[in-house]
Amino acid sequence: MSVQRTGRQTLVFQHRPVLLTTAAVGGKKELEGPLHQWFDHLNPDTKFGQPSWEKAETQMQSLAVQTALEKAHLQSKDIDILFGGDLLNQCIGTSFCLRDLSIPFLGLYGACSTMAESLLLGSMAISGGFAQRVIAMTSSHFASAERQYRFPLVYGGQRPPTAQWTVTGSGCAVLGREGSGPRITAATIGRVVDWGIKDANNMGAAMAPAAYDTLTQHFKDLNIGPDAYDLIVTGDLGQLGWQIVGDLFAKDGIAMDGVYQDCGIMIYDQKTQDVHAGGSGCGCSAVVLCGYLYRQMLEHRYRKILFCGTGALLSPTSTQQKESTPGICHAIAIELED
Amino acid sequence: MSVQRTGRQTLVFQHRPVLLTTAAVGGKKELEGPLHQWFDHLNPDTKFGQPSWEKAETQMQSLAVQTALEKAHLQSKDIDILFGGDLLNQCIGTSFCLRDLSIPFLGLYGACSTMAESLLLGSMAISGGFAQRVIAMTSSHFASAERQYRFPLVYGGQRPPTAQWTVTGSGCAVLGREGSGPRITAATIGRVVDWGIKDANNMGAAMAPAAYDTLTQHFKDLNIGPDAYDLIVTGDLGQLGWQIVGDLFAKDGIAMDGVYQDCGIMIYDQKTQDVHAGGSGCGCSAVVLCGYLYRQMLEHRYRKILFCGTGALLSPTSTQQKESTPGICHAIAIELED
Repeated sequence: MSVQRTGRQTLVFQHRPVLLTTAAVGGKKELEGPLHQWFDHLNPDTKFGQPSWEKAETQMQSLAVQTALEKAHLQSKDIDILFGGDLLNQCIGTSFCLRDLSIPFLGLYGACSTMAESLLLGSMAISGGFAQRVIAMTSSHFASAERQYRFPLVYGGQRPPTAQWTVTGSGCAVLGREGSGPRITAATIGRVVDWGIKDANNMGAAMAPAAYDTLTQHFKDLNIGPDAYDLIVTGDLGQLGWQIVGDLFAKDGIAMDGVYQDCGIMIYDQKTQDVHAGGSGCGCSAVVLCGYLYRQMLEHRYRKILFCGTGALLSPTSTQQKESTPGICHAIAIELED
Repeated sequence: MSVQRTGRQTLVFQHRPVLLTTAAVGGKKELEGPLHQWFDHLNPDTKFGQPSWEKAETQMQSLAVQTALEKAHLQSKDIDILFGGDLLNQCIGTSFCLRDLSIPFLGLYGACSTMAESLLLGSMAISGGFAQRVIAMTSSHFASAERQYRFPLVYGGQRPPTAQWTVTGSGCAVLGREGSGPRITAATIGRVVDWGIKDANNMGAAMAPAAYDTLTQHFKDLNIGPDAYDLIVTGDLGQLGWQIVGDLFAKDGIAMDGVYQDCGIMIYDQKTQDVHAGGSGCGCSAVVLCGYLYRQMLEHRYRKILFCGTGALLSPTSTQQKESTPGICHAIAIELED
């Protein structure tokens, strides 16, 4: 087996996995947002017909998998491994979805970096010869996240301006060893980075150092700069975190202007939608990639994207125990080949 | 890249990863148990000198990594990827340990199957050419698990006879592309299996069908029977789950007697230690593998082991919402080569 790695953190895939198809599912706020036309399903019922928000999350994932499989003309038996996870305690959104699928399953916890982590591991599985087709999947839900991380919604807690709005949505991607579509060419595995942010309502600032760390390493490992990409997009740093990443690179003399965006900023209209610093949650980068960005690549608007999933590795318990919030970021290079 | 897969669920590693070294850390109950002599560190202080049980879990993992690296004469910079996770909400035991390590990190949630899942993904990384050396790691803690899954200990809740005792411990394994030691030859990725068990105090019965499913598939994919191994060991089914797996195979006309054991039964003395159905938790199979079993292989007492991590994919929320408990099991074949 030949080496598929370069530098300290970056994998370079010799057999480049194809993004065969994707599916994006969203809720009411996403329906009202600027990217609504690129979703496969949008449901204004936040419970998706289920008796609880947690079951709604399972339902969104089921819908995303089913849609992605249909679009690829595949059945669940055609999938060799499914990589997925979510934000719920013990990742029950994903586990309960898998009950009905009979697909070999490897569960992940990468907080809001899960879409990138699942694509990274799925690419390893395919390029290493361990699978013909894999699924990478995740979800988040505004109401289940608020209840779990902050306060039950009925308390009517005030949200500070740095707070972000957890996306209600699920993204699912089918990767194949053969076929046509954009290909995953490289991936940089992130390290846990903690610059001491203790405000659980400021996840953008907590995750920005991890994004900066992984991007810096990605450029170094591959000996490239931001201009190697049409678009570099972080997962869910929001307005504040996006600004911090730009500032950190500016200090290093690296201009990110023009090429750098953030899914948390893209998914909502900050003038008309009251989301404060932007969107967040596993579903945020998942639906922006599996909805808007994938279709932009198919339409050749972007040819080379660096998709950087960002996660804040806190829990309510760690916050109560006065811990700071570590972050992580995994970067996935996706390229349209001729 | 050639195919490293056979049948529906089994990976066959062309470049067999070497289990270079392991480390096992345990607490008071493990110190009093029959496998105590094979631990690297045993601390009767359940808080491991920390102010909380959650921080104790991080401390156990730190100690396990540090010990494993020292035993292998390696530093954290020599490790290309660390795969790990735990049972705590949002896996904070592992994430917070990684803050100090600067190792590329991929977080997992596989409930008590995490040791097997991390070995499986670590083996994929090495055999696929993505890493020279990886770490697979997990932990659990009796007190943090009781507080999170059941009741705070101070409530003095009664435990039914089917209940298991969460192991306080952490196991860490260093896998290498080169070197000497037992090798990982194959691995079977589990599916989520749910036979409808709703008793959150009977995890053995909930996980047994998953173990039966994965073992059956492993035998089928490789066209072998249980006699291909010196020892088949499940993670933490305990007395009841172990019995169920034996019964299910007996119905298929397959005798597991003599070759089949369970880490949850092995780790405690059921006559003198009041653990009811046996041990459980991510730490259970992790310390039995990284302590007792690894050393037995080095001493040639076992030459070919099938290590089957088992996980119950429930959360307190899913139980409150009247859901049944799905299980999962991943199997890892470890072989001593001449």
